[in-house]
Amino acid sequence: MSDKDKKERLKELLRSIHEGEGEVDELRNEFKELLKSISPQDIPAIEQELVKEGVTPDEIAEMCDIHLDIFRESVEDAFGLEGVPKGHPLHTLYRENEEITKDAETLPLMLSSLREADDIEEKLEEFSERISDLLKIDRTHYSRQEMIIFPHIEKRGIEAVPRVLWRKHDENMDKVKKLLRMISKEGKEGFVDELEELSRDVSQSIMDMVFRENNILYPTLKELLSEGEWVAIAEQESDLGYYKIEPEDEWRSEEEPEYPYEVEKEISETELSELPEQLKDIIGEGVERDTYDVRNEDDFEVETGFLDKEEVNSLLRTLPVDITYIDKNNRVRYYSETERIFPRSRAIIGRPVKFCHPPKSVDKVKKILEKFRSGEKDKAEFWIQGDGAFIYIRYFPVRNEEDEYLGAVEVVQEVSEIRELEGEKRILDWKESD
Amino acid sequence: MSDKDKKERLKELLRSIHEGEGEVDELRNEFKELLKSISPQDIPAIEQELVKEGVTPDEIAEMCDIHLDIFRESVEDAFGLEGVPKGHPLHTLYRENEEITKDAETLPLMLSSLREADDIEEKLEEFSERISDLLKIDRTHYSRQEMIIFPHIEKRGIEAVPRVLWRKHDENMDKVKKLLRMISKEGKEGFVDELEELSRDVSQSIMDMVFRENNILYPTLKELLSEGEWVAIAEQESDLGYYKIEPEDEWRSEEEPEYPYEVEKEISETELSELPEQLKDIIGEGVERDTYDVRNEDDFEVETGFLDKEEVNSLLRTLPVDITYIDKNNRVRYYSETERIFPRSRAIIGRPVKFCHPPKSVDKVKKILEKFRSGEKDKAEFWIQGDGAFIYIRYFPVRNEEDEYLGAVEVVQEVSEIRELEGEKRILDWKESD
Repeated sequence: MSDKDKKERLKELLRSIHEGEGEVDELRNEFKELLKSISPQDIPAIEQELVKEGVTPDEIAEMCDIHLDIFRESVEDAFGLEGVPKGHPLHTLYRENEEITKDAETLPLMLSSLREADDIEEKLEEFSERISDLLKIDRTHYSRQEMIIFPHIEKRGIEAVPRVLWRKHDENMDKVKKLLRMISKEGKEGFVDELEELSRDVSQSIMDMVFRENNILYPTLKELLSEGEWVAIAEQESDLGYYKIEPEDEWRSEEEPEYPYEVEKEISETELSELPEQLKDIIGEGVERDTYDVRNEDDFEVETGFLDKEEVNSLLRTLPVDITYIDKNNRVRYYSETERIFPRSRAIIGRPVKFCHPPKSVDKVKKILEKFRSGEKDKAEFWIQGDGAFIYIRYFPVRNEEDEYLGAVEVVQEVSEIRELEGEKRILDWKESD
Repeated sequence: MSDKDKKERLKELLRSIHEGEGEVDELRNEFKELLKSISPQDIPAIEQELVKEGVTPDEIAEMCDIHLDIFRESVEDAFGLEGVPKGHPLHTLYRENEEITKDAETLPLMLSSLREADDIEEKLEEFSERISDLLKIDRTHYSRQEMIIFPHIEKRGIEAVPRVLWRKHDENMDKVKKLLRMISKEGKEGFVDELEELSRDVSQSIMDMVFRENNILYPTLKELLSEGEWVAIAEQESDLGYYKIEPEDEWRSEEEPEYPYEVEKEISETELSELPEQLKDIIGEGVERDTYDVRNEDDFEVETGFLDKEEVNSLLRTLPVDITYIDKNNRVRYYSETERIFPRSRAIIGRPVKFCHPPKSVDKVKKILEKFRSGEKDKAEFWIQGDGAFIYIRYFPVRNEEDEYLGAVEVVQEVSEIRELEGEKRILDWKESD
C-alpha cells in the first residue's frame, strides 16, 4: 500500500471507529497494524494532513490514543517494560512520556483548527495554555533526569549522552518559548503559517526526545542501575514533581538507597553487550568510571553532603550574611567571622543572650525566643537605615529534622545593593571585566 | 577658703599661667592643689562660671590639661596604674578616659562661647562635629567593655554591674543624640539656654561614667582577671577600635589567651576583700560563678565557637539563603536542604559542577571558577525576575584562614520582599501579633 493509500485507509478507519460502525476492536486492530507500518516520525505529518482534510479533533484524539497503544507496546517490546513494576522510577518516566506524546501530537492539530476558527482570540488563548503546559516538562520530567538520573550514568563514565540530551531539552524548551512569544504577534502577515510551522517543529522535537528516551536512555538505565540506585532515585523524585501524572505505589524495595557518590561499578562486558546499539556507538571504547571519591576521612556527613571542619568555618565566613547562633539554653555558641555589620568578639561565646543586648531591648529578645521555643513563631524581622546602609535583621528558630528546638540564629544583612538592582543579569551575560 | 574664693584664685592662676607670669610650674602646682580640694563633680560647673566671667577658651583648655593631670594621678593612686604596662587593655581604657574627659569637659565651655559668637552658624557646626565625636565613644570604648570585658566578670557571677553600666552607656548616648537633634532647632526661643543646659547634663553624665569606670570597674578588673584573660581581651580589641587613641605596644605576654567560656574561677575571699567598696555593696553576698559549659564532647570547635553535626546541618538549613558548595576539585560537596528556589537532589553530591549546569552556560561557570581559583575575582553575581519573584544569585570563592582556595559557594536568595521594605522596624517595635 502506498503512503497515500495508507492515509486514506486510516481516515476511513477513524471515521468508522468514531461512529461505532462494525466491530470496534477489529477496526482498532487494523488501524494499529497500519500505523505500525508507518515510521513514527511520519505520523505527526499524516495526522496533520488528516486534519486538513476535515478529520475532526475528536477523531484525531482517538487516533492519538491508538497511536499511544502501539507506542506503549513497542516500548514494552524494546526493553520489557512489563517487568518494571508500577511506581518504579522507570515506569513513571515512561508514563510521563505517554502524556508528553499526547500533548506534543495534538499541538499541530489544534493549530490547524485555527484557520477555521470563528473566534481566533479564544482559540489562541487555549493554544497558549497548552503550550505553557509543555514548559512543565522541563521542570519535572527533564529536570528529574538532569538532576537525579544522569549522575548515575556519568559515574560510570557515560558523560556525552547526558550532555546531548540536556542540550536537546534546552533546545526544545527554547522552541516552546519562541512559540509562546509568537502567539502574541497575532495579526502579523503570515501569522498562522509561521505558527503552524513552528508548532510542527516543536511537536517533532519533543517526540524525538521521547523516542530517544524510550529507546536509548531507559533501556540503558534498566541495564546498568542497581536496585539500590533506583531506591535512591525514588527518594528524590517527588521534590521535582511529575508531568501530569502521579507515580503509582506498587513498587517497594528493601534495598538501601545507593547514591551516585556511592557507586563504584565499571560497566562490565556483559552489560556493554546488552546496551542499545545507538548508545554503544556514542560511548565507544574505553569508557572509564569516575573514580573521584567526594568523601574524606574527617568529614562530617549530613543528609545533603559532606563538610570538614575547615570547610564549615570557611563556608560560614564566606556567606553574604552575618550569623550569630545561640543554643537551646540561650547561650551564644557560634558567630561567623565576617566583615560584620554588628561586631562580635570571641568573648561572647558561652554568654547568655540576655547579656548580649542593650538592657532596654532584652525583654523583647526574651519574648521572641519564648515564641520560637513554643513553636508559635518561625521568624522575627527588623530593618533599620542610616548613612546609606539598609540593615535587615532576622531571627529564626533552628530545629532539627525531628522538629526539636536546638536554638536560634540571628541573620544580619546589608541590603542596600539588593534594593537597587535593576532589570536582569544572567550568567550568559557575565564578562571577565565584571 | 570658700568655694567662691577658690574660684577667684583659680581664675587668677589661670590668667597668670597663660600669660607666663612668674614660675609656671609653681603656678600649676598651686592650681592642682586647689583643684584637688574641689569635688570632681563640681569642676565642670566652676569651669562654666569661669567662662561666663570672661575666661577665654584657651585658658580653659589649660585648665582642662591640669585637671587631667590630677585626674591621672588620682587614678594611678586608686589602683596603681603605674604597675600596668602601656598597651595593656586596662592602660588603653584609661587613656581613652582621658580623651573622653577632655571632650566632655570642653563641651559646655564651647557652648558658652555661643552667646558671644559673631557667626552662630559656624559655631553650631563646630559644636555639632564635637558632639558627633562623642557618639564614637559608644562604638569603641563602651562597646569594647560591653562585648569583650563584661563577659569576664559575668562569668564570675557579677551580673548587675555590667547591666547598670550598659544602661548608663545607652542613656549617655541617648542624651548625646538629643543634643544633636536640638542643634537643628536653632532659632527657637530659649534655644541657647536649652542647649547649654543639656550640654552640661551630657558632659556631667559622661564624666560620671569615667569616674565609675576608673574608680570601680577598672580596679575590679585588675583584681579579678588573669593575665590570660587580658591576653584574650587584647586579641579582640582592635576589631572594635579605640576612642581617639592607638594602644601602645609595650605590653607583651607569653600567656595563652583565656576566653570567658574557659574561665572557671569563683571569686576568692581574698579577691573579695580587695574589691572597691562600691562594688562590694552592689554584688553583695552569695555571688556564684556561672558554671554553664558551652562546649560539648562531640563539638566541632572553630575560631568563633562550637557547633555539633546536628547544629551545622540544621543551621545551614535555617538560613534564608540556598547554599550549594563545591570543593576545590569542582565537585559538589554540600547543598542546604531548604525550600529551594532551584531544587537540588542528593544525586548531585560528588558530581562535577560542569555537569550540573545547562550545557550552554557551562563555559561561563568554568571561567568564573578559574578566576576564583587564581584570586582574580571574589564574587560573581546575577539576578533574574519572573512571576513576581526576584532571584539574586551569587557565587563566592571559599578560602581558609591561610587564604587557600577550598572551593566555591553558590548563594541563591529570593529578594522581592527585601526590595519592598519601607521605613524602619526596630526590635523595640516588635509585638506578639507580628
